[in-house]
Amino acid sequence: MTTGVANEPGVRPATTGHIAPVVVKVGGGDGVDLAAVCADVASLSAAGTPVVLVHGGHAETDRLAEALGRPPVYVTSPSGHVSRYTDRAALEVFTMAYCGKVNKGLVEALQALGVNALGLSGLDGRLLVGRRKESVRSVEKDGRVRVLHGDHTGTVEEVNADLLRTLLSAGYVPVVCPPALSYEGVAINVDGDRAAAAVARALGARALLLLSNVPGLLADPADESTLLTSLSAAQEERALAFARGRMKRKVLAAFEALRGGVRQVVIGDARAATPVERALSGAGTVLS
Amino acid sequence: MTTGVANEPGVRPATTGHIAPVVVKVGGGDGVDLAAVCADVASLSAAGTPVVLVHGGHAETDRLAEALGRPPVYVTSPSGHVSRYTDRAALEVFTMAYCGKVNKGLVEALQALGVNALGLSGLDGRLLVGRRKESVRSVEKDGRVRVLHGDHTGTVEEVNADLLRTLLSAGYVPVVCPPALSYEGVAINVDGDRAAAAVARALGARALLLLSNVPGLLADPADESTLLTSLSAAQEERALAFARGRMKRKVLAAFEALRGGVRQVVIGDARAATPVERALSGAGTVLS
Repeated sequence: MTTGVANEPGVRPATTGHIAPVVVKVGGGDGVDLAAVCADVASLSAAGTPVVLVHGGHAETDRLAEALGRPPVYVTSPSGHVSRYTDRAALEVFTMAYCGKVNKGLVEALQALGVNALGLSGLDGRLLVGRRKESVRSVEKDGRVRVLHGDHTGTVEEVNADLLRTLLSAGYVPVVCPPALSYEGVAINVDGDRAAAAVARALGARALLLLSNVPGLLADPADESTLLTSLSAAQEERALAFARGRMKRKVLAAFEALRGGVRQVVIGDARAATPVERALSGAGTVLS
Repeated sequence: MTTGVANEPGVRPATTGHIAPVVVKVGGGDGVDLAAVCADVASLSAAGTPVVLVHGGHAETDRLAEALGRPPVYVTSPSGHVSRYTDRAALEVFTMAYCGKVNKGLVEALQALGVNALGLSGLDGRLLVGRRKESVRSVEKDGRVRVLHGDHTGTVEEVNADLLRTLLSAGYVPVVCPPALSYEGVAINVDGDRAAAAVARALGARALLLLSNVPGLLADPADESTLLTSLSAAQEERALAFARGRMKRKVLAAFEALRGGVRQVVIGDARAATPVERALSGAGTVLS
């Protein structure tokens, strides 16, 4: 996929074109050190490794929603799954936080480090396309189940890998975030970890790092000393039994990537220096 | 520039690669019919004309700033020029409105019309790079001149035309907005009309349409019947004498594009149906 773009006049040669990329997903929770992630992405990129950075933004989204007097609505499904209810107004707040503040903040930080970062949402160039789930079942306080319509939520099913390969070949570092695009052309909120896993699979990435504000998968979520340092492909059910809240999606994403041929999958910590380097060298929960 | 990308498997052939693109700039003022602009962009694109859509967002930015309790600050220079003062906090609001709400709203609307739109700010891939003017002189209410530092404002001097050509060749419609990137790697607010002119020059565009919520350049800004329907290259000074407020930058941008070889430059109206089609057929103020 590299020759065309690389041979065009004025386009940087694709020195990294034949190396499988590293996909780094950094969560949007408080405590995550985005500057440290950017510094590591810059080091990797300078060393010739193609990198795709996927990011979240849920804490920024909640803060913006509160500041605008439109507090976020979380619903609990009958099976106990908690998710953000994203009507059109909430989608606008979501997009401002993810695609405006966080995405452009990361692109600016990377550019200042000499990395030619290029931000994309899943809408852009149909990068992430999937199925919309327009209604969601919500267990109300009185225990009754109500059906909420107009939800802009869904699941990524297709990745425009050609677009990412074209950009990587030309020397850019794609910085990717939700929302994705539904088959009907409507923006949908999708899980960032599973989107990152879909990107890693589509690109044949050599590594997927799912970094956030925890050390990895913990046997006891309240005790960081109970880190599970390794998981085999056969242990998905066991891992899911340990996972709570957002960690459930990370575990699902990690096993999806592993099954999709990504050789190194790590659920790691982004709260301190060199988070990407540490995860690549095996800190966190390593799946193999 | 088209062969490489077009020949890659899975990438749409660059049927439009050798046709000079049309650059459409749509302003961010109230009254502009963005849906009508998108419908016209879809028609042009479907007919095989490569299009770059550049957009503003000042009314959305002001609304968001007010809603967040951070009202916009406009300063008047000693020469009488009014501009937005963009400190880091204001830049965040600006970026959320431009790159989040307006840009992704346009991309979503175009995708729903079957156009493979791809949104980019000037930061992304160093698309728009320029000089930062870090301080601004402000005439205060008491008539004294104060120097304000920390302004994130500047002027576009370089356009990454290779990036736009690569995307156009692969069948994408780039949707572009400020901020731009300074040489130091910092985000800067730049004038959207002059940025669109720089893009049109860099791409050798066959047309630049500067559409907003006025019919064109008016001899009397208060009377829409005083439209100047045509201007020659020699009439820049006369045109600038008529222009007030935002129209001054549009006139500057229009003549910059004309001098840069863009064959058709129109300052036109985006408040009604088929605004792009009408401007292309000569409605508004035509420069030649």
